[in-house]
Amino acid sequence: MSSIESALEIIRRGTQEILLEEELLVRLSTGKPLCVKAGFDPTAPDLHLGHTVLLNKMRQFQDLGHEVTFLIGDFTGMIGDPSGKNETRPPLTREQVAENANTYRQQVFKVLDPDKTKITFNSTWLDKLTTVDMIKLASTYTVARMLERDDFHKRYTGGHAIAIHEFLYPLLMGYDSVAMHADVELGGTDQKFNLLMGRELQKHHNQKPQTVIMMPLLVGLDGVKKMSKSLGNYIGINEPAKDIFGKIMSLSDNTMWEYFELLSFRPIAEIRRFKHETEQGLNPRDVKFLLAEEIVERFHNRDEAKLAHESFVSQFQQGVIPEELDEIYLDAGAEGMLIANIIKAAGLTASTSDALRMLQQGAVKIDGERVSDKNLLLKSGNTIVLQVGKRRFARVIMG
Amino acid sequence: MSSIESALEIIRRGTQEILLEEELLVRLSTGKPLCVKAGFDPTAPDLHLGHTVLLNKMRQFQDLGHEVTFLIGDFTGMIGDPSGKNETRPPLTREQVAENANTYRQQVFKVLDPDKTKITFNSTWLDKLTTVDMIKLASTYTVARMLERDDFHKRYTGGHAIAIHEFLYPLLMGYDSVAMHADVELGGTDQKFNLLMGRELQKHHNQKPQTVIMMPLLVGLDGVKKMSKSLGNYIGINEPAKDIFGKIMSLSDNTMWEYFELLSFRPIAEIRRFKHETEQGLNPRDVKFLLAEEIVERFHNRDEAKLAHESFVSQFQQGVIPEELDEIYLDAGAEGMLIANIIKAAGLTASTSDALRMLQQGAVKIDGERVSDKNLLLKSGNTIVLQVGKRRFARVIMG
Repeated sequence: MSSIESALEIIRRGTQEILLEEELLVRLSTGKPLCVKAGFDPTAPDLHLGHTVLLNKMRQFQDLGHEVTFLIGDFTGMIGDPSGKNETRPPLTREQVAENANTYRQQVFKVLDPDKTKITFNSTWLDKLTTVDMIKLASTYTVARMLERDDFHKRYTGGHAIAIHEFLYPLLMGYDSVAMHADVELGGTDQKFNLLMGRELQKHHNQKPQTVIMMPLLVGLDGVKKMSKSLGNYIGINEPAKDIFGKIMSLSDNTMWEYFELLSFRPIAEIRRFKHETEQGLNPRDVKFLLAEEIVERFHNRDEAKLAHESFVSQFQQGVIPEELDEIYLDAGAEGMLIANIIKAAGLTASTSDALRMLQQGAVKIDGERVSDKNLLLKSGNTIVLQVGKRRFARVIMG
Repeated sequence: MSSIESALEIIRRGTQEILLEEELLVRLSTGKPLCVKAGFDPTAPDLHLGHTVLLNKMRQFQDLGHEVTFLIGDFTGMIGDPSGKNETRPPLTREQVAENANTYRQQVFKVLDPDKTKITFNSTWLDKLTTVDMIKLASTYTVARMLERDDFHKRYTGGHAIAIHEFLYPLLMGYDSVAMHADVELGGTDQKFNLLMGRELQKHHNQKPQTVIMMPLLVGLDGVKKMSKSLGNYIGINEPAKDIFGKIMSLSDNTMWEYFELLSFRPIAEIRRFKHETEQGLNPRDVKFLLAEEIVERFHNRDEAKLAHESFVSQFQQGVIPEELDEIYLDAGAEGMLIANIIKAAGLTASTSDALRMLQQGAVKIDGERVSDKNLLLKSGNTIVLQVGKRRFARVIMG
C-alpha cells in the first residue's frame, strides 16, 4: 500500500461523506502539507466526546503532516444578536473571546498536538471586510438557493421569520475558506450547506474548491440520539476518570463499536480483530475495558485510567454484581422519573410501595452506591446499574 | 383657510398617495422647516417631463419654506454590478458621479430653486457603514417580507434568480432616511416598497417615521403608457422650444388635463375654471396653448415660448390645417412603420402605391413640413399631423 493510499485510509475512517475524494487524492499526491480547517463556535462550551470526533480527525491530519487550523468564528459572536432583541445572546467582547479561546486550548490540546495547531479567529479578515465587499459577497449567491438550505426551507414554508442577516452568515463562513485558501474543511454532517458554501465561494474567487469532509454525529449513551449536553446523554471530557470509565462501560455493544471507530486511535485493523474475537466468544466487556482505558488516559493519564479500571472492577465484585445484566430501557419523559418508579418499572420490585420500602431500608444501590433519597429524580440520558437487595440487578438506560 | 390647510392643499395636488397625512399635518403644525428628500439615480439621464413631476413637488415644498434635498444614490452606482458579470454596468468613478451631478444641476435648476436645494450623495454616510452595521441593518427585516415586494415575488415564483445583495439595496435606501432624519420622502408610486422601508428603519432607530408622498407616473404623448425614453413617447426638457410646444399641442384633451395637474404651476382653482370653460364651449386648443407656453417658458424663456406659439400657429395657418383633426392610433411595432404605410393606414390614400406616388410628387407634409423620403420610418411615441394633398389631414399617434 502506497503512503497516499494509507493516508487516504486514515482520512476515510469514520467519515460520513468526502466531497470530492478524487480532488483530495490529487492534493495528497502533491506531497505538500495541506491547509486543513475546522470552525468552532466562539462561546466555548464544555466539550464532550461528541465534539472530539472532529478533533480526532484533525489530529489524524496533523499526524499525517498537514497544517491544521482551529478556527474560532468570533466575528459573528462579537455581533451577538444583531437585532438587539435577544438579550440571552449579548455580544462577546474581544476579552471574552480571548478567554474562551483559552478554555478551548485547555481542552482541545488533550487531542490535538499543541505544536502543530494554529488557533485563528475569523475576525482577523472579516473585520477588514468593507460594506462594498459584503455586497459583492452577497451578489455571488441567490435567494432561491439559500432557501434550499434545510432549516431555512422549513422556516420559510412554515411561516417562521428568517431575518435577512441570516443569509449573510453562511456567506461569511464560506468566505473564511477563501481568506484561508483552505484545502480541506472538516465539519459535522449538519454543516453540509455551509461547508459547500466554502467550495462555491472559492470557485468564485478562482481558487481550487476545498475538499469537504463530513463526520457523523456521535450517538449519546442511550445509543440512539446524538450526544448533547441538553439531552444529558454525554460524557464530558472534564469529568472525573471514574465517571468517564463507568459511562463507557455502560454502553451497549453496538454503540461501543461506533465509539471505537470514531474515538479510538487504535488502527482500524486491530478493531476489526477485536470484533472478530468477540464473535468467536470473547466477552465484549473486555474490549470495552480497552476503550474505556484509552479514553480516560487521553483526558487524564495512564495511572488514572488503571485506577478507574481497578475501582470499577472491585466495586462490582464487592457488590457481587453479575457480569451479564438485563438491559432495561425507560422513557424518562421531560421531567425525569422518580427512583421508586424506576425500580418498579425495571421489575426489581412488584410495586412502587415495595420500592419505597426498599429505599427506606437502605437496600437500593446505584452503580454500587447506596441510595435512600426517595425524591431522587433520574433524567433522560442516564445509564445506571441498579441493585435492589442482594440479588436483584438491572442496567437501566433512561431515554 | 389656514396657512396649514392651504399648504396641505398644495402638497396634496396630483399625489397618488400620502402615508400618513395625519402625521404630515402634525409636522406642518410645528411650523418648522421639514427635511424633504427625493432620491435620484447616479447615472444622470436626459430628464424628460416625466421626471419633473417629482421635481415640481419638490419645488412646491421649497416655496412653502421647507428644506429640500436632491439625494443622488451614488453608493451603489460606484459598486456597479457587484457580481462583475454585467459589463454594461461598470462601476462609476467618483469623478463620473461628480460629472453626472453637474448634468443634473444644469437640468433640475430649471425647476428647483438653486438657492434652496441641497444636493447630497448617499455615499457620504454609506461609505462609513461597517460590515457589522450592514449585518445589523439586515437583521431588521425578514426574507418573507422582502419577497413580498412585487418584482421580487414575481421573479422568485417565476424561477428567476434574485442575488442576495439585491435584498440589501432597499435596506440601504431606507437607511438614507435614517441618516438624513428625513421628515418627508417623495417618490414615484413604483417606489412604494422602498419608500416604506425608510419608515420601517426610522422606527427601528427610534425616529419618527417619514411621511411618504407618492406621485403618479406621467403618461406619455400617447396618453396611455408612462412617459419613458425607451418608449419614445417623451418630451425631453432639453428639446428645442418649437418641439416641446408642438408635442404638447399634439396631446389629447384628456392627457392635457393630467399634464395641467402635474406639470403646471397655475393654481388648481384656475385649472378648474379652464375645464369649466371648455365644457361651456371654449376651444381646448386655447388652454393647450397656455400649457405649452408655460412649459416652454420653464425650460427656455418667455420670448422663446411666444415665438414657438407664433410659429406653431403660422405654420398651421399656412398649411390651412383644419382645427379639428381625426385622431388615428397606429401600432408602430418594434421596428417602426414606413411613411407610405402610415399614409395608407391613416386612410389618406387608397393604397400604399398611391401613398408612394404622393410622396414622390411632394404632396405629403408632416407637421406642416414637406416630406419626400419614402424610407422615412416613424417609431412608437411619435405624434404627427399628417397632410396629403391640400385637404386630407389626420393626427396620427404612433403607439
